Amino acid sequence: MSLIVQKYGGSSVATAERIKAVAARIAKRHDTGDQIVVVVSAMGDTTDDLIKLAAQITKQPPAREMDVLLSTGELVTSTLLAMALKDEGYQAISLSGAQAGIKTDSAYRKARITAVETKRIQKELEKGQIVIVAGFQGITDDDEITTLGRGGSDTSAVALAAALGAQVCERLTDTDGIYSADPRVVPEAKRLAEIGYEEMLELATYGNKVMQPRAIELAELYHIPILVASSFNDNPGTLIHGGVSMEIRNKVRSIAADMDVAKITIVGVPDKPGIAASIFVPLAQAGISIDTIVQNASVNKITDLTFTVTKDQMPEALKVSKGLAKKIGAKDIAADAKLGKVSIIGTGMQNTPGFAAKMFKTLCDKGINIELIATSEIRITCIIAEDKVKEAVRSLHQAFEVEE
Amino acid sequence: MSLIVQKYGGSSVATAERIKAVAARIAKRHDTGDQIVVVVSAMGDTTDDLIKLAAQITKQPPAREMDVLLSTGELVTSTLLAMALKDEGYQAISLSGAQAGIKTDSAYRKARITAVETKRIQKELEKGQIVIVAGFQGITDDDEITTLGRGGSDTSAVALAAALGAQVCERLTDTDGIYSADPRVVPEAKRLAEIGYEEMLELATYGNKVMQPRAIELAELYHIPILVASSFNDNPGTLIHGGVSMEIRNKVRSIAADMDVAKITIVGVPDKPGIAASIFVPLAQAGISIDTIVQNASVNKITDLTFTVTKDQMPEALKVSKGLAKKIGAKDIAADAKLGKVSIIGTGMQNTPGFAAKMFKTLCDKGINIELIATSEIRITCIIAEDKVKEAVRSLHQAFEVEE
Repeated sequence: MSLIVQKYGGSSVATAERIKAVAARIAKRHDTGDQIVVVVSAMGDTTDDLIKLAAQITKQPPAREMDVLLSTGELVTSTLLAMALKDEGYQAISLSGAQAGIKTDSAYRKARITAVETKRIQKELEKGQIVIVAGFQGITDDDEITTLGRGGSDTSAVALAAALGAQVCERLTDTDGIYSADPRVVPEAKRLAEIGYEEMLELATYGNKVMQPRAIELAELYHIPILVASSFNDNPGTLIHGGVSMEIRNKVRSIAADMDVAKITIVGVPDKPGIAASIFVPLAQAGISIDTIVQNASVNKITDLTFTVTKDQMPEALKVSKGLAKKIGAKDIAADAKLGKVSIIGTGMQNTPGFAAKMFKTLCDKGINIELIATSEIRITCIIAEDKVKEAVRSLHQAFEVEE
Repeated sequence: MSLIVQKYGGSSVATAERIKAVAARIAKRHDTGDQIVVVVSAMGDTTDDLIKLAAQITKQPPAREMDVLLSTGELVTSTLLAMALKDEGYQAISLSGAQAGIKTDSAYRKARITAVETKRIQKELEKGQIVIVAGFQGITDDDEITTLGRGGSDTSAVALAAALGAQVCERLTDTDGIYSADPRVVPEAKRLAEIGYEEMLELATYGNKVMQPRAIELAELYHIPILVASSFNDNPGTLIHGGVSMEIRNKVRSIAADMDVAKITIVGVPDKPGIAASIFVPLAQAGISIDTIVQNASVNKITDLTFTVTKDQMPEALKVSKGLAKKIGAKDIAADAKLGKVSIIGTGMQNTPGFAAKMFKTLCDKGINIELIATSEIRITCIIAEDKVKEAVRSLHQAFEVEE
């Protein structure tokens, strides 16, 4: 008998019918003798609907009230799933984040889990209950309800798996695993049987929307394997874990892409100490999140500074940059909002020469101009024209033989 | 400065627009310097929609899960109303039943309030907050969420008013008070400026659906005046309290009617000690709620026993009665499901002769046959044919000059 944590996403529990199907799936698993803790998201578009409802009341919904409002979505799913399981003759009980002992700080809308007090869950498991926990929510020491931010139910599931010492955290949604590239762009893309935490982190950060980086980091920290699989079929899925086989290490594992890139270049910046801080501190204060930063080599103590932001932050970033350029004596501002980025990811490229050269040559052969380059130990990212991103993904997928 | 508790019903908060209107109303009241605790129901048909959702999952939703599910409706309203008030520049905070300290026993779906721990509410009031409490819900000592049954938000409001020592509990909905009869039946029916607890209790029990008897009993016990008024206008409403003026005591205050009556007569019952128990204990065990019971005078140790139930319980009651009739040696069973009841209510009739005679004569003059009669100290009820109820209400309203 082992303990597993399963997490079902919003599309898997979008209707009463689907909740019943999920219950049947859990029941089958329970029949094998496993103890099961299930974390659920809100049904379908419930969270977005609640956000719209609040928007009808006020343009600036207070975060504390918003969190109580949003937390109701997962409560509804958890009770309905418990009802469906009991209707099938199984023992099941729903627990709110508070009842499940998920303690958080009081940063509403993006609370961090500070502790998981598992006493209640343990008690219910010992009674033979299947425990259904409302995801995405927790409670502060002052009994205030909080939510964990986008993708928060994944974080709830991994945190519970860690606290309970679960064997695996199964993340079940409408996608049946992690692919070598987006199958809508590269039809021959293949599902990966396994992937390391670091590779998955880079993938999630650089364009694969399947999982939020935060839950992956938490899983890595506590050595919790995550199985990403579909709730609609029995395909094997992708196992995210730390012990990925040696043989598949010397390879590019996946191509990630992201269309949401805008670039700003501050031209002719006097290159003196502290100049970067004088630009990026005010941008951060304006709430602008900077992705890549590139500073050219300085010629005659004059340099160009380029950085990228998401497209929705472009107008505000440009406004702030223009003010700064004047203040620091820069010559000009250039901007381009029609960019995207493509990344090759794999622990295989660590300390192995030739990956970058092959990537640049592949793009060059297709006549794709590289605007900016950014790298980590296991990732190379090129920023290119938005309308070239799909072609770049396809060519790189072929060049690096990712599907093999 | 005084402390008032206001309760807004589901139709008053059915849409974002109406919630904003309610917020404006509360804000105006707060401007007069009063401290305000507001109890809210779920928006419009939310509770019924949640019940339907559960019915799609299972025919027998477990009560514990149902209570968590239903409690979300009032949470949503409470957060939206707090948002609307903050948007208007007022300090406001929503509290769940648990946060508001409403402790209950663990009788799910119909929990009784055992205590109200007002510490948190007091703290928020001292900070100058308008406190919005999710009605209809509480929490047990084991941290389980409960609901208080139909009309439970009224009970929440009265309990909070009692625990906080509020000056008045204002119950605001889409009706603007208690009437001398249903205005849809009697166009000349008048709103009563005030009514005593006991009269209101009889009214609520005998067909006026405005308030649940339970909240009225609680208000009487703790001497909390309840103002029943409309949330859509500034009409004065009806004050339910203990100190109703002497002058209006010697009168029929209101005519109540109810169309939902079915009658069963067990004919030819051997009249011996314990016979009533042998009939009504099994009926109670079958979950059948008996309203009126009449036993005719016994002739030759043989009597007839008649009782009434609601129409939806008629088939089950008939089934049980037939089995019982055979067992106790009764001769026959007669049933009539097309009945209603009409009641005259007023403390004025206590120890005053003539009210009953006048009621019977009024009905007789209209050719309305009286099937059964039941009385309390301040009420006389006649059970008559369903299709005669409206005519009976109109004639009695006129005969007793209730509108004066």
